[in-house]
Amino acid sequence: MNQQKLYKILESVSQGQISVQAAAQDLRDYQMEDINFANIDHHRSLRKGFPEVIFGEGKTAEQIIGIMDRMITQENIVIATRVSTAKAKHITAHFSSAIYHEDARMIVLEKKALPKKGRGSILVISAGTSDIPVAKEAFLTADAMGNHVETIFDVGVAGIHRLFKHLDQIQSASVLIVVAGMEGALPSVVAGLVSKPVIAVPTSVGYGSSFNGISALLGMLNSCSSNVSVVNIDNGFGAGYVASCINQN
Amino acid sequence: MNQQKLYKILESVSQGQISVQAAAQDLRDYQMEDINFANIDHHRSLRKGFPEVIFGEGKTAEQIIGIMDRMITQENIVIATRVSTAKAKHITAHFSSAIYHEDARMIVLEKKALPKKGRGSILVISAGTSDIPVAKEAFLTADAMGNHVETIFDVGVAGIHRLFKHLDQIQSASVLIVVAGMEGALPSVVAGLVSKPVIAVPTSVGYGSSFNGISALLGMLNSCSSNVSVVNIDNGFGAGYVASCINQN
Amino acid sequence: MNQQKLYKILESVSQGQISVQAAAQDLRDYQMEDINFANIDHHRSLRKGFPEVIFGEGKTAEQIIGIMDRMITQENIVIATRVSTAKAKHITAHFSSAIYHEDARMIVLEKKALPKKGRGSILVISAGTSDIPVAKEAFLTADAMGNHVETIFDVGVAGIHRLFKHLDQIQSASVLIVVAGMEGALPSVVAGLVSKPVIAVPTSVGYGSSFNGISALLGMLNSCSSNVSVVNIDNGFGAGYVASCINQN
Amino acid sequence: MNQQKLYKILESVSQGQISVQAAAQDLRDYQMEDINFANIDHHRSLRKGFPEVIFGEGKTAEQIIGIMDRMITQENIVIATRVSTAKAKHITAHFSSAIYHEDARMIVLEKKALPKKGRGSILVISAGTSDIPVAKEAFLTADAMGNHVETIFDVGVAGIHRLFKHLDQIQSASVLIVVAGMEGALPSVVAGLVSKPVIAVPTSVGYGSSFNGISALLGMLNSCSSNVSVVNIDNGFGAGYVASCINQN
Amino acid sequence: MNQQKLYKILESVSQGQISVQAAAQDLRDYQMEDINFANIDHHRSLRKGFPEVIFGEGKTAEQIIGIMDRMITQENIVIATRVSTAKAKHITAHFSSAIYHEDARMIVLEKKALPKKGRGSILVISAGTSDIPVAKEAFLTADAMGNHVETIFDVGVAGIHRLFKHLDQIQSASVLIVVAGMEGALPSVVAGLVSKPVIAVPTSVGYGSSFNGISALLGMLNSCSSNVSVVNIDNGFGAGYVASCINQN
Amino acid sequence: MNQQKLYKILESVSQGQISVQAAAQDLRDYQMEDINFANIDHHRSLRKGFPEVIFGEGKTAEQIIGIMDRMITQENIVIATRVSTAKAKHITAHFSSAIYHEDARMIVLEKKALPKKGRGSILVISAGTSDIPVAKEAFLTADAMGNHVETIFDVGVAGIHRLFKHLDQIQSASVLIVVAGMEGALPSVVAGLVSKPVIAVPTSVGYGSSFNGISALLGMLNSCSSNVSVVNIDNGFGAGYVASCINQN
Amino acid sequence: MNQQKLYKILESVSQGQISVQAAAQDLRDYQMEDINFANIDHHRSLRKGFPEVIFGEGKTAEQIIGIMDRMITQENIVIATRVSTAKAKHITAHFSSAIYHEDARMIVLEKKALPKKGRGSILVISAGTSDIPVAKEAFLTADAMGNHVETIFDVGVAGIHRLFKHLDQIQSASVLIVVAGMEGALPSVVAGLVSKPVIAVPTSVGYGSSFNGISALLGMLNSCSSNVSVVNIDNGFGAGYVASCINQN
Amino acid sequence: MNQQKLYKILESVSQGQISVQAAAQDLRDYQMEDINFANIDHHRSLRKGFPEVIFGEGKTAEQIIGIMDRMITQENIVIATRVSTAKAKHITAHFSSAIYHEDARMIVLEKKALPKKGRGSILVISAGTSDIPVAKEAFLTADAMGNHVETIFDVGVAGIHRLFKHLDQIQSASVLIVVAGMEGALPSVVAGLVSKPVIAVPTSVGYGSSFNGISALLGMLNSCSSNVSVVNIDNGFGAGYVASCINQN
Repeated sequence: MNQQKLYKILESVSQGQISVQAAAQDLRDYQMEDINFANIDHHRSLRKGFPEVIFGEGKTAEQIIGIMDRMITQENIVIATRVSTAKAKHITAHFSSAIYHEDARMIVLEKKALPKKGRGSILVISAGTSDIPVAKEAFLTADAMGNHVETIFDVGVAGIHRLFKHLDQIQSASVLIVVAGMEGALPSVVAGLVSKPVIAVPTSVGYGSSFNGISALLGMLNSCSSNVSVVNIDNGFGAGYVASCINQN
Repeated sequence: MNQQKLYKILESVSQGQISVQAAAQDLRDYQMEDINFANIDHHRSLRKGFPEVIFGEGKTAEQIIGIMDRMITQENIVIATRVSTAKAKHITAHFSSAIYHEDARMIVLEKKALPKKGRGSILVISAGTSDIPVAKEAFLTADAMGNHVETIFDVGVAGIHRLFKHLDQIQSASVLIVVAGMEGALPSVVAGLVSKPVIAVPTSVGYGSSFNGISALLGMLNSCSSNVSVVNIDNGFGAGYVASCINQN
Repeated sequence: MNQQKLYKILESVSQGQISVQAAAQDLRDYQMEDINFANIDHHRSLRKGFPEVIFGEGKTAEQIIGIMDRMITQENIVIATRVSTAKAKHITAHFSSAIYHEDARMIVLEKKALPKKGRGSILVISAGTSDIPVAKEAFLTADAMGNHVETIFDVGVAGIHRLFKHLDQIQSASVLIVVAGMEGALPSVVAGLVSKPVIAVPTSVGYGSSFNGISALLGMLNSCSSNVSVVNIDNGFGAGYVASCINQN
Repeated sequence: MNQQKLYKILESVSQGQISVQAAAQDLRDYQMEDINFANIDHHRSLRKGFPEVIFGEGKTAEQIIGIMDRMITQENIVIATRVSTAKAKHITAHFSSAIYHEDARMIVLEKKALPKKGRGSILVISAGTSDIPVAKEAFLTADAMGNHVETIFDVGVAGIHRLFKHLDQIQSASVLIVVAGMEGALPSVVAGLVSKPVIAVPTSVGYGSSFNGISALLGMLNSCSSNVSVVNIDNGFGAGYVASCINQN
Repeated sequence: MNQQKLYKILESVSQGQISVQAAAQDLRDYQMEDINFANIDHHRSLRKGFPEVIFGEGKTAEQIIGIMDRMITQENIVIATRVSTAKAKHITAHFSSAIYHEDARMIVLEKKALPKKGRGSILVISAGTSDIPVAKEAFLTADAMGNHVETIFDVGVAGIHRLFKHLDQIQSASVLIVVAGMEGALPSVVAGLVSKPVIAVPTSVGYGSSFNGISALLGMLNSCSSNVSVVNIDNGFGAGYVASCINQN
Repeated sequence: MNQQKLYKILESVSQGQISVQAAAQDLRDYQMEDINFANIDHHRSLRKGFPEVIFGEGKTAEQIIGIMDRMITQENIVIATRVSTAKAKHITAHFSSAIYHEDARMIVLEKKALPKKGRGSILVISAGTSDIPVAKEAFLTADAMGNHVETIFDVGVAGIHRLFKHLDQIQSASVLIVVAGMEGALPSVVAGLVSKPVIAVPTSVGYGSSFNGISALLGMLNSCSSNVSVVNIDNGFGAGYVASCINQN
Repeated sequence: MNQQKLYKILESVSQGQISVQAAAQDLRDYQMEDINFANIDHHRSLRKGFPEVIFGEGKTAEQIIGIMDRMITQENIVIATRVSTAKAKHITAHFSSAIYHEDARMIVLEKKALPKKGRGSILVISAGTSDIPVAKEAFLTADAMGNHVETIFDVGVAGIHRLFKHLDQIQSASVLIVVAGMEGALPSVVAGLVSKPVIAVPTSVGYGSSFNGISALLGMLNSCSSNVSVVNIDNGFGAGYVASCINQN
Repeated sequence: MNQQKLYKILESVSQGQISVQAAAQDLRDYQMEDINFANIDHHRSLRKGFPEVIFGEGKTAEQIIGIMDRMITQENIVIATRVSTAKAKHITAHFSSAIYHEDARMIVLEKKALPKKGRGSILVISAGTSDIPVAKEAFLTADAMGNHVETIFDVGVAGIHRLFKHLDQIQSASVLIVVAGMEGALPSVVAGLVSKPVIAVPTSVGYGSSFNGISALLGMLNSCSSNVSVVNIDNGFGAGYVASCINQN
């Protein structure tokens, strides 16, 4: 298309249909579009496969509403993460079809549900009850991006047998997201059971020398299982996003 | 299959073909195989899709040769990472068909080259000249695992234009591995250009407050691009392994 | 017992008393019990010697009550740690026989007091007044697990003579828990006086470069007394649990 | 001038116009002024080119008003940073011409606007919406110090094309201030495009392993672009101050 | 005994058998023995149950030989840890019956083998091949202190099934020492299978963000299994010592 | 005295004035007093030269009042540090002669003012306005311990000339306490001007990479002036205490 | 020029002098040059004002020679930093006019000395003797970039008077580079004396808690003087580069 | 004296004995001497009470000899610290009366022994054998500065009774230096026994989580004994220097 557009301008110049000045201006604009993605602000979902996601922390309900208003005119789905219950009340009052998932602190505003796509299912596994909010954020992100997503919650390594009940489900997933706080050992154990990629998500769950998730983060980065990669502490959204990129690759 | 095996044993007992004691023994063994992967030591490549890789650091040349000897009888390919030139001399003297890649400090011993598989190609991008050994380790790992792998080296963010020359190649890869030391900014920039998963590999390249790779690691974990996940500092092998899992998913 | 159960099923099949299908189902269940501890969720106290303990932080009073309700039907004792006074008010209102220990922020709900067991007594020593809540958590945990437990509070190393008054008590304990914040030196000194195992518990008591317990933690990990092992910062519960495992070994 | 004053005193002594004692006292005072800057408290703006700036954090509104009252008698402009909205209300009630910039948490009290000076313009670039308060503090500081200041906000590295729209503006600035949180990669990319000095300002924006700005700080200190120097986390004021020193050099 | 000795001195004074001066001297000495352990330097093995162990690092072969010479006159066994092969050559040349364990870098000099004691056996489990030196140090220490000690090496969490083969042995141990580097997850998994105390030993095995054992150390301190306590990085000796204190309690 | 007491008991036994049993009891008590400082709890001020000081943080007003009540019966002076304004209101209501120093968060209850002692004066210097609370704590502690104490506040290194005005006062002090936050450079500069001991006190004043006083602490520990020693972050009390020990040596 | 070139191509098309295809190709190339800096590899010195500098660490003498060979054909000056004496011997043997500065570990190869430029002089000040190598690297870099550069070495804050001898020189510099290890206090003091920009360079000089330059780095980032910005530890090159950018602004 | 000199110059001017120009020059010089300590380089020992000490690390034997040569012409004593055995051989060959203390890595060159001064004795206590080099450095420094110095070595807290044998010596010292590695607990215990100032010196002795002395440093900074102040890790010289300042106060 760009190629076509370039030829078309040059041919117009060649045939005297437009002036050199007008062509120069067109080319500068065209160049911007091609190299500099000038339209991306309006069409990010085309380039990246999904519209930008609103990070709700540090924004007022009004600011979030404003951004959502602008985005929803162009997108089928808009997501805001890290939204407190208080802010969510204002937002859902404004967008009647927006749904607030309180445990994941996430708002999803979708025009119409799309058919699921991707080569298989994404499985979100979490270690403890306190890790569920982060796991839910991962789940909702991957779900909103159009994947089949399943969950197994509360299967920490201190009772390793609980994992084995789910061995079939674990081994049939296309991508796995494993969420854990404290010592962050679960991704290593799960990854040892499968040949698929595992996205490890450390959480800030713990106390004392867990140092708000550093302990879990280091554990995951040093996993002795080779099919593990890691995202930031509490970054359920990022894990869901990466998993979707993989599943819809 | 397991299901079939269980029925077969029980029917044999039911029909008096084997004794209760023999059946009990069979079931205990069977159970081990099924749940405990008793045969995995011999068939890890079946379960995980690739044989165990030898971490050469802290092992003598003799130990590495010993392990390779045992493995090569059962596997088509054996890999050893972090092997010094001195050790490699001994090892390649013992295995005439083993190839030592000095810059990546890696030994590959392959019986016969297999046809490439995977849905697309893996692209390894590195920031500076000093990052190349880690990038090479990633390249060789993904290559040995049977993927199409391409490379773009020396495209750091301080001269961002160098990336753009390769825009087509970058946007057509199936999975991207981005290797960088110092401030570790390259994965963020690359990931902003594509919708595919990006595996970020921090290296220990740098000095002073690079703290042997911590600076790059933190930069990557905090990437503002959502399609990035991270492996350990200097872990080129892990990056290649994860990328292969994704590409052959 | 498992052995017996396996034979019984196989004999039933052998004698035609149950069908192959029913036996297969039984064996799958049995296998779960034996290897995968399928009943452990209901009988964890059998396997580990004590029921699971509820970590109260980050759970609502309602959630804690719900878990306690389910557990108390099967257990003689249920414990919740890190319960605030506000939450405790709700919980003790619901369980009339539950006792809230405010300084240790701990709730103990016991059906009937059991006879004490274990080879000797556990002695909990703490350095400063501010360390008492953690020391109390250790005391209550070990006590609830059925041990004889004694305490010596407020014997910091800045007035080393205070320890000597208690030399007999110190040297007659079977296991010692030593709780200290700030420089965390007390476990080293106490451990130098006895041949028994010492569990060191760093607390977050201090300011400035105590870094919320890191200083005490490092001091304890580097103890020049060899009979010291360490648990997490402020982990009085863990110390009481380990001490009980040792005393009832 | 000092030179003149010294000669004048000595000539007065020489001509018997003042006594030795009076001259000794004068010289001691003079010496203080010359070497020890005894008058600097009153004339700091002469020595440093700008009056002292009030760091509002940890001071009450009353204290800030008191200091401003004393300073404004001698200075044309008085600035207070890190002033909360609540405190600002009191302060602006007291100084009717003081302006409070809420997003930058900064108060500017200026007697009369001075003509702009400096060799070129200062350009403040920021990565994300959440970095704007720090960027605004830098903008207002440089502006108050009499520079031409321009801004480009919200051009993070994850959408690198957004930078290119502003290439001309970027390349024509005399000094650049680049503000970023999370991985802090923007200064490296911007500095690669220009030959002018770049002041990098890490912000505490981020979560998890951003460690309140450490990640961004390290990224900037390890920039592979050589024309970058760095100020403290969230130190927009310092960046504006340094940029002004450079621009008015 | 002390009681008896005191009475005896006082009765001698009372009966005029010794002078007041002699009694005063005796009492001062006696007091030293009783309170200040004046004889402990000669009889530490009586008080602590085992003679002092020589930390070989930073001592010359000559210094170690000198200390061993003095100790062996009074003790049945003398141990030196962290002894290099070069130093060991000198030491074993001097003490013909001293045995050097090269992988554990440990020297044991024993007059005569004593009968084993303790209530059960100590089991040393290690995760990877590189952890074996530390595991061996723990094994040899516990063995030298007179315990039944068993070992299971190379059962990392990435192949969790390998643990299950040893389930009986694991569940029948009296105390468990679990040695692991990298993410340090093995102690959590093992401790979840038993009710006995588990001593976790982090090792400096790993690279990059393992930070010479910090990652493993934090993982173990944050174990979600409650029966775990931790010793210093690479402190196999300490783990063996603590385990012996528990087993011989 | 102890010597005398021992002889007296033994002579009484020798002369039959007291029984062996009574002497044994006396000797055990005596020994406790001499070695174990049994009376120190009541007479700490005798041994250490000053009564124990109450650390008010984490104690209720009631607890502080209780401790003060007990102490004041035996001591001339009682001090409580880190007391909030709210708590102080209760405490000063109870002790009419107690004085609350709000900026230093300190309560001083003194029966009668004692004459000053010590070889010279202690000088407390602080860098910025925000460091004054810590400096005041040091001042009040040293003052309460009976020293001549002087202060110079607000002489930071960014305006080094301000120090020189006070050169005489600085060089005539017997001990110097230098309090600074941020980069903590003031103690190095001051110590370079004098031959007396300098106690450096880092404060948590600052933001960003001051890391709550770590930056200042490290600066002081690495001082290139040799006559500097350091206390904990914000530990004005400790600095005053050490300075008093030196001045009254 | 670009503007001219674009018009020229379009006019050629308009006048039929070149075909549409040829113009399309030209424009694609042109666009690369303009936006993507395709020629920058050959003309970096044009864009950035100075050719790329070779970081010698981790490169062999042969590699450095190779790069220098290619660069010197196009540039007037080539610089290599962090070159060991051993490597330098090879390099200077190859390039007869290359000069090796051993204390700064730097090689400068210049075709012909250029006239100095820049608005004033750059002054490099260093604290201790051990900081001189880093200071020299800064000096040589700024000198090679064509600035007037002066130096004052060995004026640490422990003898603050030494600075004052150089007050005139300090106050007449256009830009100041201040190099210091240990507590890193010198930049704050110097910056307090001038209104010009100060580039602070922390060095790894020190021991113990200097942590290889972290202490100095933090001290400089937290400077209470506002005209200070900071570069990486031991980054003399970067400081010289930034200073030159400022001086030649 | 300065006062006299000023009057003398002014009177000379008043009486026409010197010109105004000459007086102006004299006054500028005089001012330098008085305020700026211009003569201090030659008379540092007068101002600080002891000549500068040579930090030998990173200096060649030749450089050290050169500095010593210049210093010994003016000073009675010259000290060099951190001098390796190899360097010392050269230095003592050059200065026949220089003495090298190998364990403390210190060279002392003294013209004639001076009488001891100071109000009491300094006592150096060290915890373990490996801490002796640092303790020796402290001893030799304090000794060279003319103090009575005593030592008690190898009295770690794991055998607290060993301290008590030396109680009299401990309680009669004027200043105490306490040197310890690992957990660094000894200063707290010693300081609890005395009312005198205690200088705590952390050493880098230890392994694993001792982090080269950080553990000991933190332990000492957080001492619960108030009469403790701390110097840098392994800074025996600084401790000896501070102790001398106190003892000769």
